[in-house]
Amino acid sequence: MEVSRPGVLSFALGLPAAELFPAAAYAKAIAQAISADQRAMQYGPPFEPLKEHIANLMALRGVECKSEQVFLTTGAQQGISLLSQLLLNPGERVMVEEMTYTGFQQVIERYQPEILTVPTNIETGMEVDVAQELLEWGERPDFIYTVTDGHNPLAVSMSRTKRAHLVGLAKQYRIPIIEDDPYGFLYYQDTAIPPLRALDDQWVLYVGSFSKILAPALRVGWIIAPEALIMSLASIKEASDINTSTLSQRAISSYIDAGYLNTHLQMLRSEYRARRDAMLHALDKHFPGDSQWHEPTSGVFIWVELSKEVDTSKALKMALETERIAFIPGEAFCINNGRQASHCMRLNFSNASVESIEEGIARLGRVLNGMRKS
Amino acid sequence: MEVSRPGVLSFALGLPAAELFPAAAYAKAIAQAISADQRAMQYGPPFEPLKEHIANLMALRGVECKSEQVFLTTGAQQGISLLSQLLLNPGERVMVEEMTYTGFQQVIERYQPEILTVPTNIETGMEVDVAQELLEWGERPDFIYTVTDGHNPLAVSMSRTKRAHLVGLAKQYRIPIIEDDPYGFLYYQDTAIPPLRALDDQWVLYVGSFSKILAPALRVGWIIAPEALIMSLASIKEASDINTSTLSQRAISSYIDAGYLNTHLQMLRSEYRARRDAMLHALDKHFPGDSQWHEPTSGVFIWVELSKEVDTSKALKMALETERIAFIPGEAFCINNGRQASHCMRLNFSNASVESIEEGIARLGRVLNGMRKS
Repeated sequence: MEVSRPGVLSFALGLPAAELFPAAAYAKAIAQAISADQRAMQYGPPFEPLKEHIANLMALRGVECKSEQVFLTTGAQQGISLLSQLLLNPGERVMVEEMTYTGFQQVIERYQPEILTVPTNIETGMEVDVAQELLEWGERPDFIYTVTDGHNPLAVSMSRTKRAHLVGLAKQYRIPIIEDDPYGFLYYQDTAIPPLRALDDQWVLYVGSFSKILAPALRVGWIIAPEALIMSLASIKEASDINTSTLSQRAISSYIDAGYLNTHLQMLRSEYRARRDAMLHALDKHFPGDSQWHEPTSGVFIWVELSKEVDTSKALKMALETERIAFIPGEAFCINNGRQASHCMRLNFSNASVESIEEGIARLGRVLNGMRKS
Repeated sequence: MEVSRPGVLSFALGLPAAELFPAAAYAKAIAQAISADQRAMQYGPPFEPLKEHIANLMALRGVECKSEQVFLTTGAQQGISLLSQLLLNPGERVMVEEMTYTGFQQVIERYQPEILTVPTNIETGMEVDVAQELLEWGERPDFIYTVTDGHNPLAVSMSRTKRAHLVGLAKQYRIPIIEDDPYGFLYYQDTAIPPLRALDDQWVLYVGSFSKILAPALRVGWIIAPEALIMSLASIKEASDINTSTLSQRAISSYIDAGYLNTHLQMLRSEYRARRDAMLHALDKHFPGDSQWHEPTSGVFIWVELSKEVDTSKALKMALETERIAFIPGEAFCINNGRQASHCMRLNFSNASVESIEEGIARLGRVLNGMRKS
């Protein structure tokens, strides 16, 4: 992908910071897992201690669940993929925000579903009133998909009121919600609003992951689902890739046993908050005066709306050519016609140092200011 | 699963021997991969050196391929799953042997395909003449699936003549073959017949894996496919689980760099050959005189046909209850009506020591001889 080529300072992808991976501690945890038990390298059922650790982690997010409701996946992407396969038949319907995670769009592509879109308010999240209207008109999607916290790409976290409203609709109309929460543990205020799953344990299917809080290469995520669905998920999962790496499962469990995770999460929140703040400050300083953005309370993105006449696809081309800076133009995330977001960009702040952010945003600002003048 | 419960001596599953995993060397390789490069724990594109190692490995099987034709997967199961998704639309047709790997049956279940079955000769493999007849009658499956070497469950390796015949049909009728080869490197003669992929690089889509030759928990397998298909596979793969663990990719590559793999493969072949021979010898000694089996030249299974009146599902129940021995009854593998194999069983020899095999087959023989008398 061009935006990740060497020499380019990239704010494009949603990558965690590689220099913050717990490399030494995790290497120790793997060595420990391998030497402790031959089963660490074998096929095997889900590792119960890890499922319990995940149930405890969820409690930190205000979610009560039992380890029997925890289903292990090969990352959050597989969680979304398995749930879509479980819930959706070809030609059926999904409800989703107009701008959403491209990986979700890739998942549903093969089902060619009818897509009911709902706009998103940049400060409060999905326009749940619109979802309600669609449902009142008789639309019946097979599920609703949303990223509640640190929205990808819009960076917003859904307001508490809207969460309650959305979950109420799911219960009233008996429509499952896939709550995709890769960034929920990366919040930058003292407390975070609990996810949808905290409000309902029957209609909310929660997807979490260690990719952003430990490292993507572990390829371990999880679904929190009603126990009645676990057997069906297990059967789809087995056909997909047999089982989630038992070695990763045991190594993560060993890492958490050793007490490292909470400290690591605190460090990540503090580091990413500093990067977020550096980016906000640099945007203020270097971006055209009529640009708009909001301070994200969770996640790894800032969504910037430029003046309407700026075409961010053209801006990307110029930024790559003249300043070797990358980002993702807004229209890449649009389910339908992308023109509504053609003046927007998604910037990632987790995968660059404070210094690189200051430098890169200054250079990107130069490109944008240059475009305005020409 | 009952057949894998503790205390039971199991010949049921196709597990590799956990005590033969290269635990120490692999732990070293992981530590090396983690400390060498931060990218080992990040999201990332396929690791080129591993793809080259795999191309070299394939050369040992008599297959010429370029690293550009190597596509990395989360184990062979994902390879089969991705290829099925690529080739098959709901309601279309596949051609497969009457008895075949249950994991393949799970993969295609969701497409509800029309299934064209072909019998398998226990000494020479798939009855390719029957496949030819079906094609001559005008049947056009979207693909043909087969396990060429160390067939699961029938333990047969396809004859050289039949390989050429089958590949000829694939070319003539332009029908892709998914060649599932998890056991191809586990052969017990001085040389092995090259897989179908050695005969054609356009219509044979080869699926390999490190699960049986290193360890399943690495979750790394591969597809060898024409370069024209790699982009489509990449897109389906990304929607499924983003990428195969970069850490596993680099660790395996480092393990192979260190020169361990060939010695390890020789050791595995020698150990598994001893276990196979022990099982063959024990079968001779303890099983009813009218039982039949063939010496497998590859893989991890022996297929036993008992006298027609023996019901192996009942035998399994008795074996578990009275002797705590497990195996898989033949009918579990049948695509259609399982009665044709109701007197058969699949025995695994890779996951028990020579002593356990001798002891376990004696006990299983006692159950079968007891059933005959009653």
